[in-house]
Amino acid sequence: MQLPTRKFTKFVLSENGLSQGTPDEVPTEEPLEIRVRGKSIAVIMRTPGHDKDLVAGFLATEGIIQRAGQIIEMEYCQRGEEGASENIMNAFLTSDAVFDEEKNRRNLYASSSCGLCGKATIEAIHQNFPPVESREQIDKAVLFSLSDKLRAAQPMFDKTGSLHGVGLFDFQGNLLVAREDVGRHNAVDKVMGWALLKGRWPLPGHVLFVSGRLSFEITQKALAGGISIIGGVSGPTSLAVEMAQDSGITLFGFSRGGQTNIYSHPHQIRV
Amino acid sequence: MQLPTRKFTKFVLSENGLSQGTPDEVPTEEPLEIRVRGKSIAVIMRTPGHDKDLVAGFLATEGIIQRAGQIIEMEYCQRGEEGASENIMNAFLTSDAVFDEEKNRRNLYASSSCGLCGKATIEAIHQNFPPVESREQIDKAVLFSLSDKLRAAQPMFDKTGSLHGVGLFDFQGNLLVAREDVGRHNAVDKVMGWALLKGRWPLPGHVLFVSGRLSFEITQKALAGGISIIGGVSGPTSLAVEMAQDSGITLFGFSRGGQTNIYSHPHQIRV
Repeated sequence: MQLPTRKFTKFVLSENGLSQGTPDEVPTEEPLEIRVRGKSIAVIMRTPGHDKDLVAGFLATEGIIQRAGQIIEMEYCQRGEEGASENIMNAFLTSDAVFDEEKNRRNLYASSSCGLCGKATIEAIHQNFPPVESREQIDKAVLFSLSDKLRAAQPMFDKTGSLHGVGLFDFQGNLLVAREDVGRHNAVDKVMGWALLKGRWPLPGHVLFVSGRLSFEITQKALAGGISIIGGVSGPTSLAVEMAQDSGITLFGFSRGGQTNIYSHPHQIRV
Repeated sequence: MQLPTRKFTKFVLSENGLSQGTPDEVPTEEPLEIRVRGKSIAVIMRTPGHDKDLVAGFLATEGIIQRAGQIIEMEYCQRGEEGASENIMNAFLTSDAVFDEEKNRRNLYASSSCGLCGKATIEAIHQNFPPVESREQIDKAVLFSLSDKLRAAQPMFDKTGSLHGVGLFDFQGNLLVAREDVGRHNAVDKVMGWALLKGRWPLPGHVLFVSGRLSFEITQKALAGGISIIGGVSGPTSLAVEMAQDSGITLFGFSRGGQTNIYSHPHQIRV
C-alpha cells in the first residue's frame, strides 16, 4: 500500500546556519500507467490514493467513456513485481468505449478547419462535449464561501504545504467531495471520477473549485462533466476564459476573501 | 504575432454586488505543435514568446538531442492558415538526433528491471542523463537572494498575477535568464533552451530557481542540462527528492525570506 505522503530528512538553512536533519512529510509522486485492452494509453505522475476515481475520471474527461456503465471493472495489474503492482491499473471497458490514440492526441487540440489554434481547439472539443445549459443561479455568498471550505478539506496540504486541492460543490455550497494530488489535473480527475462512479453524472448545477490556476485543461475536464461553474484561488488563462465563454460556463478567479473576478456568464450568479 | 497576454472583460463581484465590466490582462495559452521530420512529436499548451528556446529546450530535456549543433534550423510552419502558423514549429535536426516515440514515452517512466515505479523511473533516466558531479560551493546568502531576484524579473506576473517564472543563476547569484509561461515545465524548457542555443551547455555550477513547486518533471529537465542545484518557492514531491538524492543535485524548497529547507546534498552550500 502506497502512502500519499513520505518522510524525508530535511535540513533547515537559516541565518544561523544548517540545522540537524529532521523528518519532513513530502507529497508522494509515483507513475500510474492506465491500460485499456492490454494497451498502455497513458502514464500519469500522481499522488497514490483514490486511483480508481482517477482512472474513471481520466477516461470520462478525455472522452474515452461517456458513462459509468462502460467500466466493467478496474484493477491493479496482478503481474506487477513488488512495489510496482499499484502503479499499473487495468480498465476493462465495454466494446463501445473507443480509444483512438491519434484522435485522442490530435483532435483535442486541433481541427482541420483552421489549423492549430485556440479557437479550433475549442471547436474540436465541442464535437465531443457540447456547451453546458443551465438556468439555475447561485448566491454570491455561496461563491465567497468555497475557498475556505476547500481549504478546510485539504489534510495533506496541512502536512506538506504543497499539494493541489479540488472540491466539488452544489449550488447550496455543500462540499460533496475534495481530493488532493501533486497534479492539478489529477485532482480534477479524482473528483470527476468520484462523481461518475457515484452515479452523479453529468453535473449541471455544480461548482468545481480549484486551489490554484485555471488552465485550458481544467476547463476542458470540467466541460466533459457538464459542470456549470468553475472557480479558483488564482487566475485563468486566455484559453480557459475563451472556452468558458463559448461553453456556457461561469468562470471566476482570484477568489480571495469576499471578492472575486468573474470572466464569463455572470448571469448564473444571484447578486 | 501572438502576444503573451490578452485582454478580457472582467466583472468584480464583492459584497457590494457586481461591478461594470473592465479590461483585465490574462496570460495567453495557445497550443504549439513540435514537428520533427514532418511528424508531430508533441503538442504543448504554452504562452507564446521565446518559442525557439522552448522547442530547443524541449528537444534537449526530453533526450532527443544532446547538443545545439544537432539543430539545423527551427521555423514556424509556412503553410499554416492565418492565426495558426505561429502554433506549429518545424525543427530540422541532423540525422543522429533520434526520436523514438515509444521509447520517449515509456523509457522515461519505466524500465524492465522492476516494472513501473519511482526507483525504476530514476534508473531509466540515468541511462540518458548521468548524475551530476560538482565540487563547487555556493554561499548561503546567495541562495537566500534568488527568490527576490526572480520575482523582480517576472513582468508578466506583475500584469496578470498568475504566471509561472523560472530563472537560471550562476553560483555568484547573477541572473542569466528568466522566463515566464502558463506551464512550469515550459518555463523550464525556455530557460534550458536559451542556455543550449547560447552555447552554455551543460550547466554545472548553475542554479535553476522555480516560482512554484518542484516535481519529478522539473528535476528531470534540470538533470538533462547537468544543473547542480534546483530550488523553489514551494515544496518538492517525493520523486523529485529521490531523484535529486540519486543524481548529485542539491534540492531546496520553501525558500522564503532568510530561510529554506535543504532536501539533498547540503555539502554544496557554504554555510
